[in-house]
Amino acid sequence: MVSKNQIKLITSLQQKKYRIANKLFIAEGVKGIQELLDSNFELEHLYTTENDFAEVSPNYKTIISESDLKKITALATANSCLAIFRMPADKPILETGLIMALDSIRDPGNLGTIVRLCDWFGIQQIICSKETVDIFNPKVVQATMGSIARVNVNYIDLSVFLKETKLPLFGTFMDGDNIYKTELSQEGIIIMGNEANGISSELEILISNRLAIPRFGNLQKTESLNVATATAIVLSEFRRE
Amino acid sequence: MVSKNQIKLITSLQQKKYRIANKLFIAEGVKGIQELLDSNFELEHLYTTENDFAEVSPNYKTIISESDLKKITALATANSCLAIFRMPADKPILETGLIMALDSIRDPGNLGTIVRLCDWFGIQQIICSKETVDIFNPKVVQATMGSIARVNVNYIDLSVFLKETKLPLFGTFMDGDNIYKTELSQEGIIIMGNEANGISSELEILISNRLAIPRFGNLQKTESLNVATATAIVLSEFRRE
Repeated sequence: MVSKNQIKLITSLQQKKYRIANKLFIAEGVKGIQELLDSNFELEHLYTTENDFAEVSPNYKTIISESDLKKITALATANSCLAIFRMPADKPILETGLIMALDSIRDPGNLGTIVRLCDWFGIQQIICSKETVDIFNPKVVQATMGSIARVNVNYIDLSVFLKETKLPLFGTFMDGDNIYKTELSQEGIIIMGNEANGISSELEILISNRLAIPRFGNLQKTESLNVATATAIVLSEFRRE
Repeated sequence: MVSKNQIKLITSLQQKKYRIANKLFIAEGVKGIQELLDSNFELEHLYTTENDFAEVSPNYKTIISESDLKKITALATANSCLAIFRMPADKPILETGLIMALDSIRDPGNLGTIVRLCDWFGIQQIICSKETVDIFNPKVVQATMGSIARVNVNYIDLSVFLKETKLPLFGTFMDGDNIYKTELSQEGIIIMGNEANGISSELEILISNRLAIPRFGNLQKTESLNVATATAIVLSEFRRE
């Protein structure tokens, strides 16, 4: 059973202002929730339709019906479980190694996929412009598949930060240097741009290392890659020996 | 104005059986529709809320209200336009160069993104298992961003085809050889597997070139990559010199 007040609280967490006010966020799906339980994130409460998650104390777990789950899910198609976690305190930016900077990524699926890629490629720090979709948006959390627990994400004024950093800056542009033929360092900031507009001109002027992913298909078309797949290719190139 | 019969026909095209029966499919969004108009695909009718697409004859175009567009869209958030195109006739499989084989890709966004990647990397042929989501699903068409017009997609019994082909077969597995250190050919079939289960065991036994994308992050976790981002990395490796 989920009370009306609980439903109201949980569904309110689909909105950023209520996540901030309550310092809580939603995670859905067995795999993602399991990864968060295994991390330092603090569980507030778990709602599940199955008799699973044996390691969670009954005080923190409620077995609910599928119709109750439908009332609280933030997804078009509900999973079998939904958990509320405490939002962790902001950590300072780790200004070392490779850092991913996101300039107004708007699609939750793209941000979640990029977090998952950073985790895979051992990037521990993501810095986002304030226009980037919130990392605790339920669809972002879902798409990270638990990687959110292992990557540090900060929202900052990217322009100010990039002007002050001493790390080399990398960005992808149509007219950049062939990424496959460029020597890439293991220290620096990789900037990925907005889905529709790419990297903003304000940031572009700061970037001295202009890279391009060469196109091998029909050259008549100026089609671009999706930002998450472009990130996959860029990170793979930085990490391969 | 869209008539009730038109609404009924258009929304029926969200289902595969009606797409096949009518030999029609839906495309949404200015960019995707423009790419299909520039291709060999035959326009049946265009519905748009703006006075755009000047090159389309008024006989094939209806300017409609946003509320009418909401009645016919297959997307959660409607674009400004929706077009109905004729499904092209099946073309024979081009058994040359690099071919992408998809073993039960179920998510429309993943299939669309993979088609877009194949277009970028000059892969002209995709062969799909019959369990793979339909290429003319409106969400797939949307995610291809027009690349559907430049890549040939066939649905076949993959097991039969892969047993008979003389091309080398490549697949990614957790225990495969480091893809960054393996010599890759410019001819062959790259098999990508289902989102949850990977490549099926029936196909796995046929694959002699077992590849792995090395993980650079926290090695305690057995997290996998999303199939579309894994495809991006694999295609980038095959095409880079």
